[in-house]
Amino acid sequence: MEELVDAIRTQLENGDLEGAFAAVEDLQPVDQAEVISLLDPKIGWPLLEKLPERADAFGDLEVDTQLAYAELLPRSSLASLISEMRSNERADLYNSIDESQRELLLPGMEKAQREDMRRLSSYAEGCAGALMSSDYALLDAKMNTIEALNALRRAAPNAETIYSAYVVDSQNNLIGVVSLRDLIRARGDELVSVLMNTNIITAQVDEDQEEVARLIERYDLMTLPIVNAMGQLVGIVTHDDALDVMVEEATDDIHKGAGLTSDVGTIKDAAIGLLYRKRILWLVLLVFGNLFSGAAIGVFEEIIAAHLVLVFFLPLLVGSGGNAGGQSATLMIRALATGEAELSDWLYLLGRELLVSLAIGVTLAAAVSVPGVIRGGPEVALVLALSMLAIVIIGCTIGMSLPFLLSKVNLDPASASAPLVTSICDATGVFIYLFIANQIMGVG
Amino acid sequence: MEELVDAIRTQLENGDLEGAFAAVEDLQPVDQAEVISLLDPKIGWPLLEKLPERADAFGDLEVDTQLAYAELLPRSSLASLISEMRSNERADLYNSIDESQRELLLPGMEKAQREDMRRLSSYAEGCAGALMSSDYALLDAKMNTIEALNALRRAAPNAETIYSAYVVDSQNNLIGVVSLRDLIRARGDELVSVLMNTNIITAQVDEDQEEVARLIERYDLMTLPIVNAMGQLVGIVTHDDALDVMVEEATDDIHKGAGLTSDVGTIKDAAIGLLYRKRILWLVLLVFGNLFSGAAIGVFEEIIAAHLVLVFFLPLLVGSGGNAGGQSATLMIRALATGEAELSDWLYLLGRELLVSLAIGVTLAAAVSVPGVIRGGPEVALVLALSMLAIVIIGCTIGMSLPFLLSKVNLDPASASAPLVTSICDATGVFIYLFIANQIMGVG
Repeated sequence: MEELVDAIRTQLENGDLEGAFAAVEDLQPVDQAEVISLLDPKIGWPLLEKLPERADAFGDLEVDTQLAYAELLPRSSLASLISEMRSNERADLYNSIDESQRELLLPGMEKAQREDMRRLSSYAEGCAGALMSSDYALLDAKMNTIEALNALRRAAPNAETIYSAYVVDSQNNLIGVVSLRDLIRARGDELVSVLMNTNIITAQVDEDQEEVARLIERYDLMTLPIVNAMGQLVGIVTHDDALDVMVEEATDDIHKGAGLTSDVGTIKDAAIGLLYRKRILWLVLLVFGNLFSGAAIGVFEEIIAAHLVLVFFLPLLVGSGGNAGGQSATLMIRALATGEAELSDWLYLLGRELLVSLAIGVTLAAAVSVPGVIRGGPEVALVLALSMLAIVIIGCTIGMSLPFLLSKVNLDPASASAPLVTSICDATGVFIYLFIANQIMGVG
Repeated sequence: MEELVDAIRTQLENGDLEGAFAAVEDLQPVDQAEVISLLDPKIGWPLLEKLPERADAFGDLEVDTQLAYAELLPRSSLASLISEMRSNERADLYNSIDESQRELLLPGMEKAQREDMRRLSSYAEGCAGALMSSDYALLDAKMNTIEALNALRRAAPNAETIYSAYVVDSQNNLIGVVSLRDLIRARGDELVSVLMNTNIITAQVDEDQEEVARLIERYDLMTLPIVNAMGQLVGIVTHDDALDVMVEEATDDIHKGAGLTSDVGTIKDAAIGLLYRKRILWLVLLVFGNLFSGAAIGVFEEIIAAHLVLVFFLPLLVGSGGNAGGQSATLMIRALATGEAELSDWLYLLGRELLVSLAIGVTLAAAVSVPGVIRGGPEVALVLALSMLAIVIIGCTIGMSLPFLLSKVNLDPASASAPLVTSICDATGVFIYLFIANQIMGVG
């Protein structure tokens, strides 16, 4: 890629626009955008302007790059570029900029488009409204197949898709969906009102974007119509947007599982300060959380002083509880996120978790008693085995329950569970270990 | 859902098939499948048979339920049900059953379909071939638009999609793709050879399914044609399959990040033994990995005996290194999985990681020195601060490098990194802490 961009840069600097165009014209818009983003906007603009799908390529650029272009372009070029963009990408751009920059975009746009952009950009990030496009194809219920096909032909250049077309009544209420597949199979005189499917899956405009993506996944949809509280059609979300949401949400959940907070975007481009802020919160909280482990040690200082061999196994026992509990939490968080498990399943899943953790605890108790005997003798081995069993079972119970508890109080289970679970299991583990040691071995 | 199923069960037991049908006919196939899966196959079959989209509903059932039906049905009913299924779901079913059960499926199927099923089921799980469908629409380059539309009309009942149609030469080499959108916009006498797009994104039949899904995501594709090494078209993968793969792979990576091995399927249905096996491997390995931490403690036993306060902070320091290193590993694993980072980016990202970890290390050092002074005085605080700084920087370096290293030797970075990183960071952390304590405080 970098060699290609270097070659194109040289061509553009030498005024060889045709040569540069030839090098990128067969690329897909998203690849063209990657090339454009590595060029200086001053030399990149003539190339971008020449691309047949320039609005798609422009829409695939990062917002910062889009703005660099917006500030450079003559007003008329900018207006026509913006008006060619997909409606949801246009709204995203509008949303990411401040008032003074908006002044750059608005003039030259048609009134209807401007209002549409304002409407789309008014929805809160993360909901269906912020994801949807307003470029859908509408049909009239009274049309016959030939009229409908002609209408779709006319809609084709601007609609996001013409493979699903929507039928609304005079109040703009969604009353039916008809697929192009059904239309081209039907006789010319069949009516849309007969062909259309009235049993429609929809989502509310304020629905969470993850739920929207899950509907598209469950029902294998190409597009999902979005309606407002009155049942009026306000937009559509397409399969490719659902895929992007799923990837984004999965990344988010994976990051949260490691105690990372805010989203950093692309890791290669994120500012150092942003990466630091994303990571530091939980690490600092865990430092103070870990003081509880220290406090537990303080309580049993005498037994440690009497049997220093106990310290040898401290990281091992504490770590095992955290690891096992972390596994339980991870399984539950993902099951809750994908809709596989629901709040009402808690008791049933807890019963199963107890059985699994008992088996795991017995295995780990057996494993740890071998080095226990070697390093400290049979009494130490007994302490280790009993502690391990108790720590694993309690760790797993905490780990599987905490995500449900957070869900119950409407917190995102992913945002806190794993680091919290580790921290709680650590402190509990230290206490259990030293308590059992104290009972069995005593200070004397 | 459970109430609905209870009502339907009662209706079916009382012979009220019409009533049961009325209750499910407006549901989507995947929801019908959920109802069916909760019924006894004996009473469920008449209902399933009556559904217009029964093959879709049957395809959405778990394989075990499909088999329960297969064993119950008369041979002719089974054959017609199987022949109506989507080709890739049919192949999945064929793949999940043993020889004797295959005997149940094969008779009654047409020869061409049988061969297609054998071919599709011959690809290794997890590659494009195992994901693809053979139900695509083919067009001839010499057709004009009207002929092409007629061909698609005929293909519509059986093809997975008619919105993208494929053009192959006499050797079955893929030479073009034409969209229904372009076809209905074109004049009737325009030729497919002129309309078709010859600049086609394809994937090889042995390509990893995650890479296939990533192509569909990057290029916003509805379908991706799959070719063999000779460039012959062998199948298509659709957007809904890509979405399923993305969810599955994300779940897999999340589970691996917590040290879980094999896939368990649905957590509510997984056998206890399977859950145990999925979880135990890494936990046992970590027990033995943790013995290195114990060994480090053994080396410095004298300094611990001399300054027991050091034990108080042991879980804290060790945990912080593991947490920070785990964050680094998680960020890199996900960036490698989504294609955001590549192997060649290692050095650049390492430089950035050193800066971030320095900032994190300084912050945590400051945080830990407060309780350090209170509990142990200024000398202990100094030991803690220096140890924390060193542990965090080294932990982050290990954490960010290990995924690259595993990738480099063609291992899945997600499968080992997080638990390994924690284990390595723990042992390193113990050693660093006690080494620094020994240098500064001494045994005397």
